[in-house]
Amino acid sequence: MRVLGIDPGLTRCGLGVVEGGMGRPPTLVAVDVVRTPTELDVARRLVQIEAAVEEWLTTYRPDTLAVERVFAQHNVQTVMGTAQAAGVAMLAAARRGIPVVLHTPSEVKAAITGSGRAGKDQVGAMVTRILRLDSPPRPADAADALALAICHVWRGSANHRINDALQAAAAQSRRQRQAFAAQVKEKK
Amino acid sequence: MRVLGIDPGLTRCGLGVVEGGMGRPPTLVAVDVVRTPTELDVARRLVQIEAAVEEWLTTYRPDTLAVERVFAQHNVQTVMGTAQAAGVAMLAAARRGIPVVLHTPSEVKAAITGSGRAGKDQVGAMVTRILRLDSPPRPADAADALALAICHVWRGSANHRINDALQAAAAQSRRQRQAFAAQVKEKK
Repeated sequence: MRVLGIDPGLTRCGLGVVEGGMGRPPTLVAVDVVRTPTELDVARRLVQIEAAVEEWLTTYRPDTLAVERVFAQHNVQTVMGTAQAAGVAMLAAARRGIPVVLHTPSEVKAAITGSGRAGKDQVGAMVTRILRLDSPPRPADAADALALAICHVWRGSANHRINDALQAAAAQSRRQRQAFAAQVKEKK
Repeated sequence: MRVLGIDPGLTRCGLGVVEGGMGRPPTLVAVDVVRTPTELDVARRLVQIEAAVEEWLTTYRPDTLAVERVFAQHNVQTVMGTAQAAGVAMLAAARRGIPVVLHTPSEVKAAITGSGRAGKDQVGAMVTRILRLDSPPRPADAADALALAICHVWRGSANHRINDALQAAAAQSRRQRQAFAAQVKEKK
């Protein structure tokens, strides 16, 4: 399972690809931060973000795009641009039929550090440890993008395990029903 | 000058094309409202909005895209989707090199009705009168998209007039400088 995590933003947009699956630790595939010039108008900055996301989708072919859910309560000055950058990334993935999942910052922090209120340094340190890197990815947007991807790889695996367990339980109960029906038939 | 006005939204996105210029009243070219199903995820709704905007850009070839500026102070529940729908429209235009302008709702209301606090009915009534329609465009999102386009056609013409005036003034002062320089030369 390969996940592209995106920490959206117009000034800095973090992109991180992580691969992982059942029973093996997640590994780093790629990480970078895309910057767009503040002097450019928003529409043209969105075109640059789209081009970067398109390039990453083509190069790394992720199974899923994990994007940070943007809230209106954040910094009002930048939140609209952040929401629009997130929207453009979601659009690019959905256009290719790649599933898009949203995770809140506290979901990601809780998954990575055990606490939904962890600081940037803690998230960076845990991402470094989980992916067995030599040093924390810089800037923080890069680490946040990787944290999002790790969070989703883990959740995805957990969901797969739950689905597998449910399917196994369903198959077992089907076998039991069939065995019971056979017994009833024999008795008749 | 042909302007595509967009009143952005995920559930209802208003699109209106208006044509106008110096000394002639703006005329209606096209108006519609695009809806995307609430049961679809945001990413796929944005793909549908993009497809609609692309179709309008191809069909009506506007000179400018005028989009309502979205503020974080609005309804927090829907504002993120509205900002993302606006972002996707801006992206589609900028990708084609079409200039994008943003107008606040109060700028549009003031331009159309004379009051920045006008109600929806007032805006609808004035759009009907300005474009000489038989009845107000429905729903309100359609009228709002047309109001945005009219607002920009008028502002654009006003800017053109100001630019023309400035250029005329610059040319006159250039001629005066040249005449003065010629006089000085003669005297020498």
